[in-house]
Amino acid sequence: MAQSQTVRIILDAMGGDFAPQNEVLGAIAAMQHFKANNINAEVAFVGREKDIRSALAQHGAAATDFPIIHADDVVTMEDEPAVAFRKKRGSSLYIGLQQHAEGYAHAFVSAGNTGAVMSHSTLLLGRINGVSRPTIGTFLPTTEARPTLLVDAGANVDCKPKHLYEFAVMGSIYVRQMLGFEHPRVGLLNVGEEEIKGNEAAVETFGLLKASNLNFIGNIEGRDILIGSADVVVCDGFVGNIVLKFAESMLTFLRAKFTAYADKSLGNKVMMGVARPALKGALTGMNYEEYGGVPLLGVNGVSIIGHGKSTPLALKNMILRAEEVVRKEVNISIENALNPPALAPQPQKA
Amino acid sequence: MAQSQTVRIILDAMGGDFAPQNEVLGAIAAMQHFKANNINAEVAFVGREKDIRSALAQHGAAATDFPIIHADDVVTMEDEPAVAFRKKRGSSLYIGLQQHAEGYAHAFVSAGNTGAVMSHSTLLLGRINGVSRPTIGTFLPTTEARPTLLVDAGANVDCKPKHLYEFAVMGSIYVRQMLGFEHPRVGLLNVGEEEIKGNEAAVETFGLLKASNLNFIGNIEGRDILIGSADVVVCDGFVGNIVLKFAESMLTFLRAKFTAYADKSLGNKVMMGVARPALKGALTGMNYEEYGGVPLLGVNGVSIIGHGKSTPLALKNMILRAEEVVRKEVNISIENALNPPALAPQPQKA
Repeated sequence: MAQSQTVRIILDAMGGDFAPQNEVLGAIAAMQHFKANNINAEVAFVGREKDIRSALAQHGAAATDFPIIHADDVVTMEDEPAVAFRKKRGSSLYIGLQQHAEGYAHAFVSAGNTGAVMSHSTLLLGRINGVSRPTIGTFLPTTEARPTLLVDAGANVDCKPKHLYEFAVMGSIYVRQMLGFEHPRVGLLNVGEEEIKGNEAAVETFGLLKASNLNFIGNIEGRDILIGSADVVVCDGFVGNIVLKFAESMLTFLRAKFTAYADKSLGNKVMMGVARPALKGALTGMNYEEYGGVPLLGVNGVSIIGHGKSTPLALKNMILRAEEVVRKEVNISIENALNPPALAPQPQKA
Repeated sequence: MAQSQTVRIILDAMGGDFAPQNEVLGAIAAMQHFKANNINAEVAFVGREKDIRSALAQHGAAATDFPIIHADDVVTMEDEPAVAFRKKRGSSLYIGLQQHAEGYAHAFVSAGNTGAVMSHSTLLLGRINGVSRPTIGTFLPTTEARPTLLVDAGANVDCKPKHLYEFAVMGSIYVRQMLGFEHPRVGLLNVGEEEIKGNEAAVETFGLLKASNLNFIGNIEGRDILIGSADVVVCDGFVGNIVLKFAESMLTFLRAKFTAYADKSLGNKVMMGVARPALKGALTGMNYEEYGGVPLLGVNGVSIIGHGKSTPLALKNMILRAEEVVRKEVNISIENALNPPALAPQPQKA
């Protein structure tokens, strides 16, 4: 998309656990970033107008800086996605995505109920031509300078090889367009390196990936993820969700271990006190909320989903990411990759 | 088993990457432990007699302290388990397990090719009555004082709900007998807490576990493992292997992050130098090799499998664990649990 064109992003002001405060702060920070970097982008809120206006005023933003689409209702974290879709047509989630689908905006961002954002997005935006199932990809840090994209990170728990193949294609394109790696290395998450390893789905997927034009490096194991063996780690959403949540719990686990160690003696406490800034410095980049949301790949639009606990910084990053996904036309690349042009008719032998 | 009875353990002297050196050192340390604690146990080696005798002499042990069963051949880490089983009948693995199966010993311990130890054990020892598939359980550290048993940790990649149920039963018994928890909390590893969450196998397994007399606490998520939400974490071996290997890579990842941080500046280097002992202290218990091998549950015998890189300490712990599993008669409990006595005939109404 041309740099001169304005990317319009709708932010669900009622999504996260600290809505609309964090949403408003995130949007203000995002707009400052856009202005400072001469990026043509605009953020509109969807949600309860009065609450949004009051939060904007509280943080000293002019109400005129942000268009507001009023929505009475809110999909809560406890709502069953399918039920919310049928019964809460006036929710910020429904109305925001509907506006995106109707062309009022190029992207939609929410830190709300993940399952509901996924299903509402799929139902209201539809799928890109050639995509069987939209998927969620999440970046994990690695020991290398570059992160790795885990895909599917939880959207689809029962997957066929064809779905895993599509995740690999979409993940590859996302990493290439967003991080600029020309030939992202695609690894299939499995229990061993050999082609014959793993469950039935893994073995069949290996064949599909091997025959593709992706940069498929073969099977990778659980231990290879954090050392950055692949740029795209392909798995079903059951495995992906478990690995992601396990990884997220590493920081909690480490903090508990450090605290327990410090509590053992005064000497330990002093040592850990000295070590704390070093630890904090070393572990920068392990705080997943800083990554700022994950894209729902494969829907016919741009839908960025964030953690319910998203900080203003996370929300800012989600908005920035949305702008990038739109600007870099990730969806067009996905459609082209999954719908290769028909082969030109072969010349007949004379 | 009575304390007066001698538990005889066969150690595969050719198994690990540092065989027979680490094996001999581990066996010497284990025998010292047994003697110091008045435990009636004996370790016999199986493998190349000359190499074993030479290692024993090197470490100052009397050759008479350890019976040696000679075996010419060795199953290597590269051997395909099924091929090795057919072609290497003279291997330390085959002969050692055969001796165990024939009653010469109560247990077998190896740090060799994991897949080969598993399949040789299953084929030579057979399964406990009522067990469809033997399984591997692995302890993971938690933020609590007690570890959690991940089962299956990689033995079975395609599982039916019935298999997952049996893993839960065997894991529960193992934790109860080995760690002394009266009612181990069993959690089903899944992508959400609700009963309807997860893939088809998970949903059906939930029903089986709910109807069982296990202390089933419901679904747990990836983030719950390290905080010790359950004493037994049930999953198929595909997920279990990936989680286990991912967990094992955490230390590597942390070390790399700490080193990278230290390399950034002299100040950082000094700080990390000061922090190092604290870190080491805090992370004690995260080194999985110290746990000393994992049992293959469900085989009609006791087979303890260790990491190829097992240290002498790990091998010592594997031998100690083998003695305990035999002494505590874990297999009898498994057989009883999976073969409940027929219900007594109901009294007829008068």
